[in-house]
Amino acid sequence: MSIEEIISRIKPLDQSAMSSARDRQNMLTKPQGSLGRLESLSIQMAGITGQVRPQIQHKVVTVMAGDHGVVAEGVSAFPQEVTPQMVLNFLFGGAAINVLSKHVGARVVIVDMGVAAAMDAHPQLISRRVGLGTANIAKGPAMTRAQAEESILSGVEIVEAEIAKGLDILATGDMGIGNTTPSAAIACVVTGKSASEIVGRGTGVNDEGLRRKILAVENALKVNQPDMKDGLDILSKVGGFEIGGLAGAILGAAANRRPIVIDGFISTAAAIIATTIAPQVKDYLIAAHCSQELGHRLMMEWLGVTPLLDMNMRLGEGTGAALAMSLVEASCKILDEMATFGEAGVSEKA
Amino acid sequence: MSIEEIISRIKPLDQSAMSSARDRQNMLTKPQGSLGRLESLSIQMAGITGQVRPQIQHKVVTVMAGDHGVVAEGVSAFPQEVTPQMVLNFLFGGAAINVLSKHVGARVVIVDMGVAAAMDAHPQLISRRVGLGTANIAKGPAMTRAQAEESILSGVEIVEAEIAKGLDILATGDMGIGNTTPSAAIACVVTGKSASEIVGRGTGVNDEGLRRKILAVENALKVNQPDMKDGLDILSKVGGFEIGGLAGAILGAAANRRPIVIDGFISTAAAIIATTIAPQVKDYLIAAHCSQELGHRLMMEWLGVTPLLDMNMRLGEGTGAALAMSLVEASCKILDEMATFGEAGVSEKA
Repeated sequence: MSIEEIISRIKPLDQSAMSSARDRQNMLTKPQGSLGRLESLSIQMAGITGQVRPQIQHKVVTVMAGDHGVVAEGVSAFPQEVTPQMVLNFLFGGAAINVLSKHVGARVVIVDMGVAAAMDAHPQLISRRVGLGTANIAKGPAMTRAQAEESILSGVEIVEAEIAKGLDILATGDMGIGNTTPSAAIACVVTGKSASEIVGRGTGVNDEGLRRKILAVENALKVNQPDMKDGLDILSKVGGFEIGGLAGAILGAAANRRPIVIDGFISTAAAIIATTIAPQVKDYLIAAHCSQELGHRLMMEWLGVTPLLDMNMRLGEGTGAALAMSLVEASCKILDEMATFGEAGVSEKA
Repeated sequence: MSIEEIISRIKPLDQSAMSSARDRQNMLTKPQGSLGRLESLSIQMAGITGQVRPQIQHKVVTVMAGDHGVVAEGVSAFPQEVTPQMVLNFLFGGAAINVLSKHVGARVVIVDMGVAAAMDAHPQLISRRVGLGTANIAKGPAMTRAQAEESILSGVEIVEAEIAKGLDILATGDMGIGNTTPSAAIACVVTGKSASEIVGRGTGVNDEGLRRKILAVENALKVNQPDMKDGLDILSKVGGFEIGGLAGAILGAAANRRPIVIDGFISTAAAIIATTIAPQVKDYLIAAHCSQELGHRLMMEWLGVTPLLDMNMRLGEGTGAALAMSLVEASCKILDEMATFGEAGVSEKA
């Protein structure tokens, strides 16, 4: 399998299914348009799946983990050892994403894309380590172009394996101490904004840490000079293994006509990489929420997506996406389960 | 039971439970505050219930229906017969609120507070008809003060009967052709805004209908001169039977330390009536969403609440509240089910 092959498999939305879904929405017992985004989401879902009444049975949150050499610049409030510790927390079910996935009825798929520590094998852990954490992007490229390609293809393979088990909707999540720094760098490359307009406090750095983080992004851009038209170049120079894995999962889901609910800052950076590689993937994206992280809104504007939730969240892991996935499911149930005016014997608008 | 007795039973939030819940949130495996409104909601829930780790087992959406004499002014896009037709749709499970309540695992409690048509008895329909629809508020009072009191006490009784069956969280919903007009009038009374700043298109009136609706609200205020300090006076002069029922349900839930998720425009008008009667009820309110209906944001500002969702919805029935109820439940599960740093062996912030 090659990235070019995946790109060629991502097709436009099914306009006929969307049109039929829109017609059905207008026959349901409510004023036309009165369910707002629940209606438009259901129509997008029809276009993605090609089904007039899309059914969501299997919901999957994939949490991809990786480490980042740029932590050497003092960009994070938490030590790097937290990445493998949190992977264990995911495996034991104690993290926020476990709780929220259970709440919405989704299964969690945990992937080690390149944690900088030994990880014991675990039946619930998918190990696709591209390396022991990336190199420091403030000093040079994060990874080789071959590693960038490997991370993306791993993401495709992981999501296709889950589709084989049953996956009707994918939510993206991340774990990686330091990963708001490469994500901010990716956002700067495509939006042309300065580091100070994009970089936020991540897990909560103080003012000095924030200055170091802005400087690290500025240096990463200066040293690496990523090509804004080349997603693989951006990923290899200023990205991360889990960001590449998520970009691959997004491409793989779209190639199989599955909707992707994008979580916060890091997942949106992955969606930017995926969209740079295959612009038509954009129609398959659903933005979950607006993160508290500074540049997130600008990134969503660049993607042309509007978030469903605004809950002042900034945790990552897929937490916002898990909540939003339930809203997407609700939109499909509205389209499928509500009575029409005719069925219910309700008078229509005068 | 008297309204005064209910008022006296609504106590302040439990500060000790809130403080303990806040301490626990800060020990959970995530950066402090990174779950944003999920954290603050869980702390409010602790204060409401008096439990450090509140449990939500039983979720109830009450949909209260009533008719409105003001439809004679041509204020609605749908004919009045739709009110009883939609009540039947609720009973048969075909309406949006049925679908969304099922999605979030809530039971629906349907109440006829004063539909202007004969309604056959049905095991799922609670009949507390205060009258056959209100009088035309553009010409005089909607109801007598005794009827306003009756509608509120009925709402209290209904919610207390549900609490006896198990009710950990209440969502409010409404049905009543024409009921955005009295709701707008209520909002004008307390906020001091003009009708043109509050009145929206409801189920979708055209420009001419909108002008008639604004005029109807202006006339209702002029003819009735409601006392903005007296909730019962406002309700009796420019309210509705279902609005009174919902105000009573809100007061009754708060008196029993149960949280209330307020739906859109009509439910917020009911919350305004409840808050005018008992200002301390405000701490028990959770605003579900920002409706597309024009004045809704101003009404929430007056109440001092911030909506959880903004999905461009404007249907009523409790649809926004049902979705938001699931977010409140998620917040309680985060507080209860996540591992602490100590339990998970995760390093804390440096």
